[in-house]
Amino acid sequence: MKVVRSIAELRAALAGRRDDGVGLVPTMGALHEGHLSLVRAARAESGTVVMSIFVNPTQFDEPTDLAAYPRTEEADVARAAEAGVDIVFAPTAAEMYPRGFASTVSVSGVLTESLEGAQRGRAHFDGVATVVLKLLLAALPDTAYFGAKDAQQVAVVRRMVADLGVPVALRVCPTSRDVDGLARSSRNVRLSAEERARAVAVPRALDAVTDAVARGIRDSTVLVAIARDVLEAADTAVEYVAIVHPDSFESVAMIEGPALVALAVRLGDTRLIDNALLTPGGA
Amino acid sequence: MKVVRSIAELRAALAGRRDDGVGLVPTMGALHEGHLSLVRAARAESGTVVMSIFVNPTQFDEPTDLAAYPRTEEADVARAAEAGVDIVFAPTAAEMYPRGFASTVSVSGVLTESLEGAQRGRAHFDGVATVVLKLLLAALPDTAYFGAKDAQQVAVVRRMVADLGVPVALRVCPTSRDVDGLARSSRNVRLSAEERARAVAVPRALDAVTDAVARGIRDSTVLVAIARDVLEAADTAVEYVAIVHPDSFESVAMIEGPALVALAVRLGDTRLIDNALLTPGGA
Repeated sequence: MKVVRSIAELRAALAGRRDDGVGLVPTMGALHEGHLSLVRAARAESGTVVMSIFVNPTQFDEPTDLAAYPRTEEADVARAAEAGVDIVFAPTAAEMYPRGFASTVSVSGVLTESLEGAQRGRAHFDGVATVVLKLLLAALPDTAYFGAKDAQQVAVVRRMVADLGVPVALRVCPTSRDVDGLARSSRNVRLSAEERARAVAVPRALDAVTDAVARGIRDSTVLVAIARDVLEAADTAVEYVAIVHPDSFESVAMIEGPALVALAVRLGDTRLIDNALLTPGGA
Repeated sequence: MKVVRSIAELRAALAGRRDDGVGLVPTMGALHEGHLSLVRAARAESGTVVMSIFVNPTQFDEPTDLAAYPRTEEADVARAAEAGVDIVFAPTAAEMYPRGFASTVSVSGVLTESLEGAQRGRAHFDGVATVVLKLLLAALPDTAYFGAKDAQQVAVVRRMVADLGVPVALRVCPTSRDVDGLARSSRNVRLSAEERARAVAVPRALDAVTDAVARGIRDSTVLVAIARDVLEAADTAVEYVAIVHPDSFESVAMIEGPALVALAVRLGDTRLIDNALLTPGGA
């Protein structure tokens, strides 16, 4: 496995390796089983698998979150190699944002203004869209792999890729979960043992909503209240629970078609997000 | 020569034609000798030459200017074929900006806020950057060709391409001029005979500045006054005359290195822009 630091080196490493397809798994490092499941999906479909590892400063709204974001490059490189990655692209911030950098890709509307956009501010999704476009243009993959946990981010990337006509297919892989259901996240390592125990309320809240939909409840106000009850019983600080269209993130008042329940909570200093697709007709 | 209307058709037409290089000449149609000089440059360097013809609504700040912009597609297609274009890409606005389109590429700073950015508003260069990125991603050319007349637009595109890492080389070709020096522009057809006669003041003003620099004048205030005198003597309404760095468009007070004199005037209802590179050391 090769580790490259510059876009020029990445392109050189990919030259002549495109015939059987290139798959890109964009990450911020601190790899866990969720990332590795994306690598396995890429490995199954692509002759060459590229993983990017870049803690993108422009998408962090809180300097403390950026500073505390786990950085474990040596271990990440070892796990990537073991999982079958061919090329790790691990640029510096100066490589991605050289002096004089002045360009931003923005997606406007409810999709970027609601939920994570409202909580984290407009710059968050601008940072995401811009860095993902840069990574896609650097590797020009046939397919890029994302985890379903970051549903709104995926919807923003999907919109940006469609709008600008970026020649790439997107694959969204199921959220990887611990045995008790907690979505795997690089931020989970920051939870204390006591917080980790309470964090199970997050997947339980989603399960409670899914069960309620299966029982025939369609009113989002009722469904949101069910989730909030579970989250608040575990003493988490709820930032939002919302039921939205999975592509547009427009609010859904009454579930009649595809819908997503999405939530964000804080446990101590750690912010967790999760979501579940709701299928009123039965999955 | 093929004329295609959709990005999918363009990609299909380009499949298998990439080995000897693809050159893209982006235009808004109403072709004149300036556009054809770009085609010749592309023809000399590329196995396949694509010309896009798209009057991009998002970069027009004045609805009347958009409505009055000359549209001569039948004649354009004939001239493109004669000049050696292989594929004309002439999409509709609905193909470029389908329902739900929400993405914008912005370049921030003096480069987009000054001169044309100040006159035409922030949306102008957002519209330019976004549509050029879309055209580049649709054709994925090895090289794209622009005319030097739109110097600030070229600088914005250059910044965007460098920042995002778009895999394309940019070639800037000299401004094509009528025998009396007036820069060729699709908008020139709107000039009355009397306005056309006065319009020669534009290249004369640039020549006067170039001559003054050759005589050793370095102070931009003096140089701008020289240009304004020529323009005002011809009774043109001067929007701006400025001396700036050719890449950053930062003001240059005293010419010591590369500099550009750029100007915009109105003659009746028609707006004209032009510029000249200033080389204090002698060209």
